[in-house]
Amino acid sequence: MTSDRVVNFSPGPATLPEPVLARVREDLPPRGETGASVMEMSHRSSEYAEIHDGARDRLRRLLEIPESFEILLLQGGASLQFSMAPMTLMGTRRSADYVVTGRWSRKAVAEARKHGAVRIAASTEHEEFRRIPDSDELDLDPTASYLHLTSNNTVVGTQWRGFPEARAPLVADMSSDILSRPVPWDRFGLAYAGAQKNLGPAGVTVVVLRKELLDRAPDDLPTMLDYRIHAEKDSRYNTPPTFPIYVLGLVLEWVDDRGGLEAMERRARQRSEILYQRLDESDFYRGTVEPGSRSRMNVTFRLPSQELEEEFLAAAEDAGMVNLKGHRSVGGIRASLYNAMSREGVERLAGLMEEFQADHG
Amino acid sequence: MTSDRVVNFSPGPATLPEPVLARVREDLPPRGETGASVMEMSHRSSEYAEIHDGARDRLRRLLEIPESFEILLLQGGASLQFSMAPMTLMGTRRSADYVVTGRWSRKAVAEARKHGAVRIAASTEHEEFRRIPDSDELDLDPTASYLHLTSNNTVVGTQWRGFPEARAPLVADMSSDILSRPVPWDRFGLAYAGAQKNLGPAGVTVVVLRKELLDRAPDDLPTMLDYRIHAEKDSRYNTPPTFPIYVLGLVLEWVDDRGGLEAMERRARQRSEILYQRLDESDFYRGTVEPGSRSRMNVTFRLPSQELEEEFLAAAEDAGMVNLKGHRSVGGIRASLYNAMSREGVERLAGLMEEFQADHG
Repeated sequence: MTSDRVVNFSPGPATLPEPVLARVREDLPPRGETGASVMEMSHRSSEYAEIHDGARDRLRRLLEIPESFEILLLQGGASLQFSMAPMTLMGTRRSADYVVTGRWSRKAVAEARKHGAVRIAASTEHEEFRRIPDSDELDLDPTASYLHLTSNNTVVGTQWRGFPEARAPLVADMSSDILSRPVPWDRFGLAYAGAQKNLGPAGVTVVVLRKELLDRAPDDLPTMLDYRIHAEKDSRYNTPPTFPIYVLGLVLEWVDDRGGLEAMERRARQRSEILYQRLDESDFYRGTVEPGSRSRMNVTFRLPSQELEEEFLAAAEDAGMVNLKGHRSVGGIRASLYNAMSREGVERLAGLMEEFQADHG
Repeated sequence: MTSDRVVNFSPGPATLPEPVLARVREDLPPRGETGASVMEMSHRSSEYAEIHDGARDRLRRLLEIPESFEILLLQGGASLQFSMAPMTLMGTRRSADYVVTGRWSRKAVAEARKHGAVRIAASTEHEEFRRIPDSDELDLDPTASYLHLTSNNTVVGTQWRGFPEARAPLVADMSSDILSRPVPWDRFGLAYAGAQKNLGPAGVTVVVLRKELLDRAPDDLPTMLDYRIHAEKDSRYNTPPTFPIYVLGLVLEWVDDRGGLEAMERRARQRSEILYQRLDESDFYRGTVEPGSRSRMNVTFRLPSQELEEEFLAAAEDAGMVNLKGHRSVGGIRASLYNAMSREGVERLAGLMEEFQADHG
């Protein structure tokens, strides 16, 4: 299988572990005693319950999520969480602090403003989001209902190295770095993540929510936007996205087999360092973000000219490395290195960078 | 493959056509030039665009949906549409008519009441939902913003034979009979359906919406609940559930190959008639709904005692026929016969009914 596979640096939906894809193949009918695919199972069946609860429980163990948090498997992506979080968590205080570090936090702010007052605790927009603000730059409201941040910024390629200390509970969009780093749950109120980068295929959203915050929910929420209902019904109020959840479970199994969260974190550091080292050694490639804010998930850089960038992308594609084009809003090159990316894939890219520089530098 | 497969009468997620499952297997890596699974493709790639637009366009052709309607592929199931429909369509009139024919229409009413005034145009709840109301029983408000109905009721097993005439545009939850019957689009404002019964796997919701009604949307909707945004962005405002949409496309291809909507309707009639004929000929089995309201999708019946029902379910399971248990709220037997159910599967069930009656009648 490997030989034909491209190295897929897609920012998401992203590459999946090959053993997971092989298992999906094997599991398709004929399968076990029923001969039914997961796609054909009632979400009320015991067979599906095992898949669903298994994924949820494994995530709890891998991410060391305390029992004081609910783990929900929902639909709608982080974009729906941009609304659900303020609708529930602003409670009666109706004000929340947001740190703006990129395109996605800006979107989170725009949605939250429909439901209450948003204070901008810090923003690096005037610096084109090239860095994450320092803790002492955060202008925090001690009475804020929560402090929202985007833990990793896929477009520009920055990442919070640590999570800030605040009186308000942290709410984090972790779509692009979940399960690649430990989470200090004692400071957290809510973390959410679309699965399609680090966890599995598109179509399922992981929500980890401190149970005591459920009390803040107003009573007139649309049922599908009410965390309390999803918590009560174990994410099976209505039909969940059963197949994406099944693949999520397989990815979590794979993570477990590879050594769990610690291994994922180590591998993420190693993968990204291969590329950052190349950037630091070179005056041909230029990293686009401040070194202290570098993302381990999305490594972004420029070449001396746009023409060379296009040539580089074409050379990469010829060499079987795809989806390296930077986000349309910023241009340049972006290598997305989520959990399923192999070290070998990154080394191939580093090799190409060296060759390309030798030819064009 | 066939020999090991059970006949799966699940009410949803439901059985899928075997050629579709075979194709899913074949499409998993290694696949074509990229060696990437659909699950690993960026939703902004041209390869995925072909899958997405292909499914949408084929649905338009199969269901003869006029160009004056948008076709959206969303998340959240019919349950989220219970909220999105009133939030957009009640507009400034703030009153809508609802017909209550079962558990799901009751849920639709409860959600709509959070957004405006709901008039009950008719309800058969006092008759335990054993029938669909006649047109002349409908108490319609000529100024209603819309008239909502559930075209097929999975729990009790009734179905609207035709759609009512009303001044207000029809809004229909067609989750359990979409693509098994023609739709008089000239009378419709909106039709929505979770895919997991007649169209594909769970995780994608088809929404067909008359474009001119988009003007009714208020400006402060959460973006993810705003049909206008999804229409503008071609259902790719954020990452769509790419894999479920891909399987939806394969099912639609299969429907096309089998003769399209007309064939689906004919097959649905034939399948259900096999079972209804058995009920009519027997004084052992008893249909639970009025003959004029019988569903072609969910055939519900009782045996003389609950003990016999349990024995029947066990005998069915021994014979490789599963998921025939009635909904927990009503008991009895329910055979769900969606598009992918084979005539042979239904004949096997009819054969068992005959044998079982001979042994126990």
